[in-house]
Amino acid sequence: MLVRVEIVAVGTELLLGQIADTNGQWLGEQLAANGIASHFHQHVGDNHERIVLALRTALARSDAVIVCGGLGPTQDDITRAAIAEVMGVALERRAELVDTIRGFFEARGRSMPANNLLQADVPHGARVIDQRRGTAPGLICPLGQKVVYAVPGVPYEMTEMFERAVLGDLLERERAAGARAVITSRVLRTWGASESALAEAVGDRFDALIDNGRVTIAFLASGIEGIKVRITARGDDATHAAELVASEEQLVRRLINEQLGDIIFGVDAQSMEDAVAHRLLARDSTLAVAESITGGLIASRLVNVPGASAWFRGGVVSYASDVKFALLGVARGPVVSGDAAESMARGVRTLLGADIGLSVTGVAGPNEQEGQPAGTVFVGFAMDERVGHVALRLPGDRPRIRAYSAISALDVLRRELDRVASAPTVTT
Amino acid sequence: MLVRVEIVAVGTELLLGQIADTNGQWLGEQLAANGIASHFHQHVGDNHERIVLALRTALARSDAVIVCGGLGPTQDDITRAAIAEVMGVALERRAELVDTIRGFFEARGRSMPANNLLQADVPHGARVIDQRRGTAPGLICPLGQKVVYAVPGVPYEMTEMFERAVLGDLLERERAAGARAVITSRVLRTWGASESALAEAVGDRFDALIDNGRVTIAFLASGIEGIKVRITARGDDATHAAELVASEEQLVRRLINEQLGDIIFGVDAQSMEDAVAHRLLARDSTLAVAESITGGLIASRLVNVPGASAWFRGGVVSYASDVKFALLGVARGPVVSGDAAESMARGVRTLLGADIGLSVTGVAGPNEQEGQPAGTVFVGFAMDERVGHVALRLPGDRPRIRAYSAISALDVLRRELDRVASAPTVTT
Repeated sequence: MLVRVEIVAVGTELLLGQIADTNGQWLGEQLAANGIASHFHQHVGDNHERIVLALRTALARSDAVIVCGGLGPTQDDITRAAIAEVMGVALERRAELVDTIRGFFEARGRSMPANNLLQADVPHGARVIDQRRGTAPGLICPLGQKVVYAVPGVPYEMTEMFERAVLGDLLERERAAGARAVITSRVLRTWGASESALAEAVGDRFDALIDNGRVTIAFLASGIEGIKVRITARGDDATHAAELVASEEQLVRRLINEQLGDIIFGVDAQSMEDAVAHRLLARDSTLAVAESITGGLIASRLVNVPGASAWFRGGVVSYASDVKFALLGVARGPVVSGDAAESMARGVRTLLGADIGLSVTGVAGPNEQEGQPAGTVFVGFAMDERVGHVALRLPGDRPRIRAYSAISALDVLRRELDRVASAPTVTT
Repeated sequence: MLVRVEIVAVGTELLLGQIADTNGQWLGEQLAANGIASHFHQHVGDNHERIVLALRTALARSDAVIVCGGLGPTQDDITRAAIAEVMGVALERRAELVDTIRGFFEARGRSMPANNLLQADVPHGARVIDQRRGTAPGLICPLGQKVVYAVPGVPYEMTEMFERAVLGDLLERERAAGARAVITSRVLRTWGASESALAEAVGDRFDALIDNGRVTIAFLASGIEGIKVRITARGDDATHAAELVASEEQLVRRLINEQLGDIIFGVDAQSMEDAVAHRLLARDSTLAVAESITGGLIASRLVNVPGASAWFRGGVVSYASDVKFALLGVARGPVVSGDAAESMARGVRTLLGADIGLSVTGVAGPNEQEGQPAGTVFVGFAMDERVGHVALRLPGDRPRIRAYSAISALDVLRRELDRVASAPTVTT
């Protein structure tokens, strides 16, 4: 028997369309990745009767409910009371939670608003999931053989709590109910090909797997982060599942490489900046970036890599043209050109004392610039004796062109670093 | 009597988190903008029994259902059959729809796949909403006093059909049922106070409104973008609703200002960088930024403001300490300090030839630096003769501290610009 999980996201702002339900989407993805069935999701507003009704509906057609949101410290945070009503029990204030919440504020040198005490209220019979990132504790509430998990609506708190306490409890319930297949997946991260080009490259294999029952391939368009190719396998145990994924990965990589070239830059959670960092560390080189159209996006992606200080010197955001001339040694004249990009890369390498310079200049739109249409982008690089540039034409509106420019520039650097690494060594 | 609308989005990809439910979000927004109540949304997979169950659930607690998706031409498009089962009627193939669909393909010089005939099947008793952008017709299916609208899942087709045929039908039902209200809302954007502090500042007013029936206040924690305070009013017409919101806004602003100071930086979709841009334009000043901990985040936020080139010169990402020394004139020594922040602000202002310099230096963690814990951040500014800094202690993990640092630095600049603007003019 599978445990069927229903997600109930609480918040009037979801119904009003003011925010997207990213929590439900993330939870759906996690459940699927762990082979846990989820047949229904609901959104409900901050209203006691309706939350109660949504929970009762969910419990009638699913075995476990993850209710997300409404655990905050304000008067419209009423999930705790709604769960207590569905359980048919009272709320009780837990002294240890009062202490923890008070401690959270004391550690920050602030006094606790009285409202926050509401977060110490727990339905009788529920277990508490302690908070590690905020003040709202989570809850595990048994209802006969079924269960309601309550987690905060703040994504940063919710994800941590789900991974630490909810997922394990769900998997334990599945094991207790018998029949657990182990599901493993691997994501290949690609940049530079369209979803339909990928689908075509892998098409025959995709069709061959339709009735396989063990292995599936899916394409996930991830916007500014490229297209993901997810390989999922259902094995009898962890080793079996891993073997199935590994042999499929080999096959899919070959198909993609043969038809689309070197577009796979990483796997699973590896980002393009991770791919660059890895190569810079391997050759012990430092990097500086000069950004115009991307306005700091490339630098801010690079510093997200742990340990970036070992190879990242910094950058210059040369938004005004005369900053390019004065600081980076770009010749006065057009600034959206391959020449300007190369000068920027050379200039920032010298200015910041780095081994490698990377640069990007272009037109974000909506208007053209120097007679060039929006989406015209030049990526420059200066690496040892090699100085060059790549011209790109990127689609989309202003923020999208900017984001595509950032990942494209990093991809140019990734490929250049590979080219250098694979070139024969010349001894002089 | 209000007509309560429930949205049911059909598609296994929604449950798996492979795509976000942008249709539900858009529909929620449209319903709210038109003052139509919507208390529940559901997601359900491409499974006949479960779609039937979701529709029955929706009809039990709402008066109208908009079911979105599952009208395509493939075997997993089964919404039509599920609606027929709920209505207790058969599907019948409509000859005029067969002609229309065939015409759609002929007009494009393609032959019609046989599968597409499925789209000519309509539950007995349903009215057809003709398609203007694709092949799947929409449906208006009466169930006693209630109704199910079926619209395609393709956003471009769905939005057109909703606006042309569904919205008008819903408003007509509301008018027939009496009592039409118009709903308007306004969001106050705040930075620098916790959700519970805000709730306490506005608490008495919040309580007073609970049974008001006209005006409500809600708090939305928006992570790195601060806390939003949403005021919503239900008026007899648009003017009345706007008046209710305006007078409530005045009251709420006063309560927040009195107790928490100048923490409201904008309304509705205005961002912190918009607030800064507005003030820079007003005093005709240019800005340059020097970033260490934020690594380019501030610059990349600033260039997102349309027309940023009028006031934004650019920036330096001085990630390595010696870049701070060599380029920005920071004295050799500790770089996580108020002195270093001030030197960075002064240095970048000079280097890039701007009127104002803004800087940020700090410890993103997880490890401490120069004996200071993660979250220690100094924001520096250099504006005319005024050079100064603000010390902050920010919570969270590495990316969060970095994101908080960026918006905090912009907020420091916003407040400084206001201080200068409100200071008495000294003539020398």
